[in-house]
Amino acid sequence: MTVSYTLEVANARFAGFTKLLFRWKGSIYKLLYKEFLVFCFLYSLFSVIYRCILTTDQQELFERAARHCNKFAKLIPMSFVLGFYITQAFQRWWGQYTSFPLPDNLMMVVSGNVHGMDERGRLLRRTLMRYANLSSVLILRSISTRVRKRFPTLEHIVEAGFMTEEELKTLNHLYSDFNKYWMPLTWFANLASQAREEGRVKDDIALRLLMDELNNYRAKCSMLFHYDWISIPLVYTQVVTLAVYSFFAFCLIGRQFVKPEKADEYKVHVDLYIPIFTLLEFFFYAGWLKVGELIINPFGEDDDDFETNQLIDRNIQVSMLAVDDMHQHLPPLEKDKYWM
Amino acid sequence: MTVSYTLEVANARFAGFTKLLFRWKGSIYKLLYKEFLVFCFLYSLFSVIYRCILTTDQQELFERAARHCNKFAKLIPMSFVLGFYITQAFQRWWGQYTSFPLPDNLMMVVSGNVHGMDERGRLLRRTLMRYANLSSVLILRSISTRVRKRFPTLEHIVEAGFMTEEELKTLNHLYSDFNKYWMPLTWFANLASQAREEGRVKDDIALRLLMDELNNYRAKCSMLFHYDWISIPLVYTQVVTLAVYSFFAFCLIGRQFVKPEKADEYKVHVDLYIPIFTLLEFFFYAGWLKVGELIINPFGEDDDDFETNQLIDRNIQVSMLAVDDMHQHLPPLEKDKYWM
Amino acid sequence: MTVSYTLEVANARFAGFTKLLFRWKGSIYKLLYKEFLVFCFLYSLFSVIYRCILTTDQQELFERAARHCNKFAKLIPMSFVLGFYITQAFQRWWGQYTSFPLPDNLMMVVSGNVHGMDERGRLLRRTLMRYANLSSVLILRSISTRVRKRFPTLEHIVEAGFMTEEELKTLNHLYSDFNKYWMPLTWFANLASQAREEGRVKDDIALRLLMDELNNYRAKCSMLFHYDWISIPLVYTQVVTLAVYSFFAFCLIGRQFVKPEKADEYKVHVDLYIPIFTLLEFFFYAGWLKVGELIINPFGEDDDDFETNQLIDRNIQVSMLAVDDMHQHLPPLEKDKYWM
Amino acid sequence: MTVSYTLEVANARFAGFTKLLFRWKGSIYKLLYKEFLVFCFLYSLFSVIYRCILTTDQQELFERAARHCNKFAKLIPMSFVLGFYITQAFQRWWGQYTSFPLPDNLMMVVSGNVHGMDERGRLLRRTLMRYANLSSVLILRSISTRVRKRFPTLEHIVEAGFMTEEELKTLNHLYSDFNKYWMPLTWFANLASQAREEGRVKDDIALRLLMDELNNYRAKCSMLFHYDWISIPLVYTQVVTLAVYSFFAFCLIGRQFVKPEKADEYKVHVDLYIPIFTLLEFFFYAGWLKVGELIINPFGEDDDDFETNQLIDRNIQVSMLAVDDMHQHLPPLEKDKYWM
Amino acid sequence: MTVSYTLEVANARFAGFTKLLFRWKGSIYKLLYKEFLVFCFLYSLFSVIYRCILTTDQQELFERAARHCNKFAKLIPMSFVLGFYITQAFQRWWGQYTSFPLPDNLMMVVSGNVHGMDERGRLLRRTLMRYANLSSVLILRSISTRVRKRFPTLEHIVEAGFMTEEELKTLNHLYSDFNKYWMPLTWFANLASQAREEGRVKDDIALRLLMDELNNYRAKCSMLFHYDWISIPLVYTQVVTLAVYSFFAFCLIGRQFVKPEKADEYKVHVDLYIPIFTLLEFFFYAGWLKVGELIINPFGEDDDDFETNQLIDRNIQVSMLAVDDMHQHLPPLEKDKYWM
Repeated sequence: MTVSYTLEVANARFAGFTKLLFRWKGSIYKLLYKEFLVFCFLYSLFSVIYRCILTTDQQELFERAARHCNKFAKLIPMSFVLGFYITQAFQRWWGQYTSFPLPDNLMMVVSGNVHGMDERGRLLRRTLMRYANLSSVLILRSISTRVRKRFPTLEHIVEAGFMTEEELKTLNHLYSDFNKYWMPLTWFANLASQAREEGRVKDDIALRLLMDELNNYRAKCSMLFHYDWISIPLVYTQVVTLAVYSFFAFCLIGRQFVKPEKADEYKVHVDLYIPIFTLLEFFFYAGWLKVGELIINPFGEDDDDFETNQLIDRNIQVSMLAVDDMHQHLPPLEKDKYWM
Repeated sequence: MTVSYTLEVANARFAGFTKLLFRWKGSIYKLLYKEFLVFCFLYSLFSVIYRCILTTDQQELFERAARHCNKFAKLIPMSFVLGFYITQAFQRWWGQYTSFPLPDNLMMVVSGNVHGMDERGRLLRRTLMRYANLSSVLILRSISTRVRKRFPTLEHIVEAGFMTEEELKTLNHLYSDFNKYWMPLTWFANLASQAREEGRVKDDIALRLLMDELNNYRAKCSMLFHYDWISIPLVYTQVVTLAVYSFFAFCLIGRQFVKPEKADEYKVHVDLYIPIFTLLEFFFYAGWLKVGELIINPFGEDDDDFETNQLIDRNIQVSMLAVDDMHQHLPPLEKDKYWM
Repeated sequence: MTVSYTLEVANARFAGFTKLLFRWKGSIYKLLYKEFLVFCFLYSLFSVIYRCILTTDQQELFERAARHCNKFAKLIPMSFVLGFYITQAFQRWWGQYTSFPLPDNLMMVVSGNVHGMDERGRLLRRTLMRYANLSSVLILRSISTRVRKRFPTLEHIVEAGFMTEEELKTLNHLYSDFNKYWMPLTWFANLASQAREEGRVKDDIALRLLMDELNNYRAKCSMLFHYDWISIPLVYTQVVTLAVYSFFAFCLIGRQFVKPEKADEYKVHVDLYIPIFTLLEFFFYAGWLKVGELIINPFGEDDDDFETNQLIDRNIQVSMLAVDDMHQHLPPLEKDKYWM
Repeated sequence: MTVSYTLEVANARFAGFTKLLFRWKGSIYKLLYKEFLVFCFLYSLFSVIYRCILTTDQQELFERAARHCNKFAKLIPMSFVLGFYITQAFQRWWGQYTSFPLPDNLMMVVSGNVHGMDERGRLLRRTLMRYANLSSVLILRSISTRVRKRFPTLEHIVEAGFMTEEELKTLNHLYSDFNKYWMPLTWFANLASQAREEGRVKDDIALRLLMDELNNYRAKCSMLFHYDWISIPLVYTQVVTLAVYSFFAFCLIGRQFVKPEKADEYKVHVDLYIPIFTLLEFFFYAGWLKVGELIINPFGEDDDDFETNQLIDRNIQVSMLAVDDMHQHLPPLEKDKYWM
Repeated sequence: MTVSYTLEVANARFAGFTKLLFRWKGSIYKLLYKEFLVFCFLYSLFSVIYRCILTTDQQELFERAARHCNKFAKLIPMSFVLGFYITQAFQRWWGQYTSFPLPDNLMMVVSGNVHGMDERGRLLRRTLMRYANLSSVLILRSISTRVRKRFPTLEHIVEAGFMTEEELKTLNHLYSDFNKYWMPLTWFANLASQAREEGRVKDDIALRLLMDELNNYRAKCSMLFHYDWISIPLVYTQVVTLAVYSFFAFCLIGRQFVKPEKADEYKVHVDLYIPIFTLLEFFFYAGWLKVGELIINPFGEDDDDFETNQLIDRNIQVSMLAVDDMHQHLPPLEKDKYWM
């Protein structure tokens, strides 16, 4: 489930963000603890080798290497490249969310403009909304691992009631190399056009309104498809990952508590055994990279990913509510409290 | 109340921003003084321990630790990560404000297009606007702590006159797992459609205009809901908080005025007792983080948060004014001053 | 007056930006010279105290303090925080400018769609445009110090011909706690609706066009109001100001030309008396902060602020020109030069 | 083919980005290995010259030069300028992709609003969509090297079925110095207008809808043309390239493992022969620059460039499917599963 | 002419950006060589003075000054302020380009909706488009030095066929303190309205379409005007210029190859005579500033500036082509290749 925490920090009070540090779900700890353990293990390994196994000559060599590593690790401008990369990933992430096709506008328009309380009217309205929802399911199936798991085949979609058997046949019958998510929307356009001819849609302007909202809806589905198809160039992601990984690889050696270079430094030398600063840096930088990993595809199954299945259910539910149960079912008009 | 200060700095005159430093309300001092006191207390504690309690050997150990801390604290790239984080939070913050649903467009359109000076006409116009306002109250109740306090239950909304008892019943009757803020807007669509049939809305184009503005209004409500639902990933906030907190934790030790490392440094050693630079850094960086805390949820009760309750009152007031009192109530047309 | 200089640098020729450095109006020198003098005075004061008044022991103490200050002043990441802050202020600044309500679209639509060369027709068109202009004057009065000075009371607006006495009475009669800038626009909507009934507006589509442009116009007024109401959080501005001010406070001491720390540095010591580098840094950083001060409220009376009064005059002038003088007054159609 | 990898990193699991490092297709390795080999070769060359050929005096000179180079190479703020440059290139890159003209909206509108199951109806609908597709082919031919290769002359477009011989003649007949991509869209407008007169388009509102979508489509074609015409200023690209190239030129000398400056550094001197840190830096910075090279023109033939030819095929295929096969061919309406 | 180079770097192949370095037109070399020569000359001058003219005592003073300069020059955060400044200038630059009024949409709408193959019909369509083009010429004349040179007076515009003598008279007759670019567009609105009355525009919806596109066109003209009127605040440009200039002024002294400070540094001292690193830095930073100079006003006569005159010609040419030659002149409809 999306981890929502803004209500907790609604007021900027004493140590406001502190409480956010003690959460497990969707937290940096949960995301990073495995990498952290691996890093700790490798660091200890090197530490043990250096302290217990190496001869004095080998130790000296190790010490030189460590100093060298430490010096050059500083040259890697991680914070810079991470800052820019994450900012761009973040914008795509929010762009993807706002591209999520919600049927709210469409259902309001269908409810208000496709008339008739009889069965045919209901059938028209419900089918129109079903088409719209089907379309979003088809597109989400191809980009969200959660939805793919829920609907491994098109038959599962039929079973879930988003599609009829006949529709599935028609869909399979039409040949296209590419994603067919747009087909139910073409049905929508044609059905709306038919409804206009039957007089269920009373005028051309109402039909136009339906078409406009349909196009908005389709544009969002299409945007989602393209966000999935065109990723941030692989090269960019590789460059960032390489920078962070190589930095910490060097830290494994360079941040060992080796003997100081010069004799007079002995008295200020601190051997902590546990490199808490390096570990903190790891948490910080590797955590920042994890943010990128998290938001680069918000349609996965992370704690923080979008709840696509829940949204699909919500959409079909409110669609039917709005065009069927609520259609022309108004509470009685009353004078309000401030009527004068 | 939102702290508005731009008028004071309208002109970039001598020491323009200086006067902004001497404000309490909504200021960095008010937000931060508690954390500041805690930091001071802990710093003093360590200072006293170091100076008065530790033995000379222990002192030397402490000094080493302090030097070590100070050296590594510099590696934490706070300014960078804060800069990027705050920029993103800022964009969301302004996005949230501009998503605040204002009924101004809607009321102008209702006033101009739903005709009839009789009671039915008034009832229609007032009810339409009441629906719109009700919808925004429902959504704001779920995201703003201030509004939630004002309307703890739906009954409070009825009492305040935004909803009738009948409407509450209908609303409760409709089952949905999710926020029902969109329901009054569906009523709006259906009522407008009914008004068209009664001839109160004179043509299809006017109806379309009503529908368009309704959709704009709904889109804003929906946007607000999503801003609340999809926060900045928790991981990101944690990374930033962790960076700032660990930096100042290290400063507690690393910025103590310990004895200098080498004998010849004694004569240039300065022991200020009060680490004014570190305190300033605290004000600066922790203050920057507080900015994030402040704007990450602008619907809380901070001095600088949006005045949702005030806006709700303003909206219903001007809605009624525009569609009722001002409807077709024009001042007499006169030739203007420059008429030739 | 807005300082426009792009024409001077239209071509990137030799030392292109150089000539911009020798301008007084709207320049950094004009904005900053007072602060600069104060800084110079304080620096000299400390310098004189150090060189002439202090005893040798006190001097040594001062030198230690100076070195300490200088070292820590470097820790303040001014350029970073200024960079981010100014970028955000800049976006708001441009956003405010593009929100300035211009009647151009509206007047073209009124001119083309409200028909009638007789007095009633002229009266309608002129009044509609007057309402629009009145609305922008009302909103600008509340945010621009220049406009406020020009129209200290609503009577001044009547005098200037933007409003009639009757309209003022009606406006005063309507009670609202909030800015009433939207009221003339509601009159506009109602008057347009009336014009449609009279047949002056010939069809529903033209009325819709009027309503759409009206809504665009109103949206801009509203945006302007909100930009004014919701400032950049005070805390943010305070943090930035604090950083810059404390940096230069430390420079007053830390950048004094004190005796070098070690004997062997004597021979390389440079005592310039005038700290030209520090003064340049002052110009640079304090200048950057001044940019922020300048653009955070573009409706003041700075050299670079928007010329609201001039724009108000332009708007009413072209409005009347377009809807009255130019209405259906076309130059004769002729075949153009390339007619074949 | 566009390298899509987001599905692989849908979940932020252990070492999530690690697997991305072991890919060849579209990877940084594939893009950069040639430059890398050249750099290695040159480095070795200098290394051999220094170690084997130079006399001791010359070696000393070389060592001085190396130290000098190394010191100044640090002054080049590559990460900064690269960060800003890539960010801007990235925004253009995504802008270009979202400007890709997709016929989806247009085909839905044509399918729903140009009526008639007879041959004339089909002909109209198919021709309209062919015009739209032809237009995008014409514009893509001028900007995408892939499309240019596929359609070296206009005859190839005729052959591929996007244009008839007659249309080619008409196109050639019309004289214009500039790209003629907009001409088929003018035909579209005129043909739609004709279809309205024939009654195939039933009302003015439907015609307007066609015109609106046509304009959207044309705007995208036009945007694409302008992205191609107006590049990021050459000067900017040169500055960035120069910075990166000169940095690595200096590294060739400055990062040689020369003898240490002072005698007492001998014992800590590390001679690795292979400068792994410098090579990593090369990968990192030159890789970042390659990202820029990759995205500055996404219509080339890189692994990561847009698959324009594939998109062209998809577009014509779905266009015909939607307006012909699917036109008024609806699956039978059935009550859905949740009908009550 | 705009320097377009993206086609050359369509594929990210070996040393892709390298070839961009060997261009003269629109290059950094062409833009910067004069400043570069001046800098070299001044540097040599100081060098000669130091080496040949000064006495040993004076030399020592100079050396101190040089070291001092060098130390403080590092404090100027040029890369930061340049990065932010150029980014903002870049956004404005692209904003200006996308605000360029292109008549493509308008001409398509005129061609499709203003009917009549007779002379009156042609006259109407041609005149409408001429008005639109005239308007853009009027606005461009006031912002582009190139267009100003081409049309120094309004008579030149008449001569070029964009305006008739009668229109010029009418234009001159109307008094306005401000740019009159909007007047031809008001004529357009009125003429379209007249065409509707004559029945040349067949329905209200078509008229509305014309009006909408007209407003879009006008909005772009207006945007262009405002981009010109409201520059980036002069103060900001001055701050950036001052930073870069003062940095290089200090480099003139600070980067001289003075004798090393301490005796033992003699053996590592490198005296290159030519400060290649400083020269590179100059190219790099001054080049970055030149980017700003180049893009701050894209309507000048630089190699990289927009080709306004060429665009004006293109616009009038395609306008006439579309509304006259191509009006209802369609190639014969044929079954396409894939007809089944």
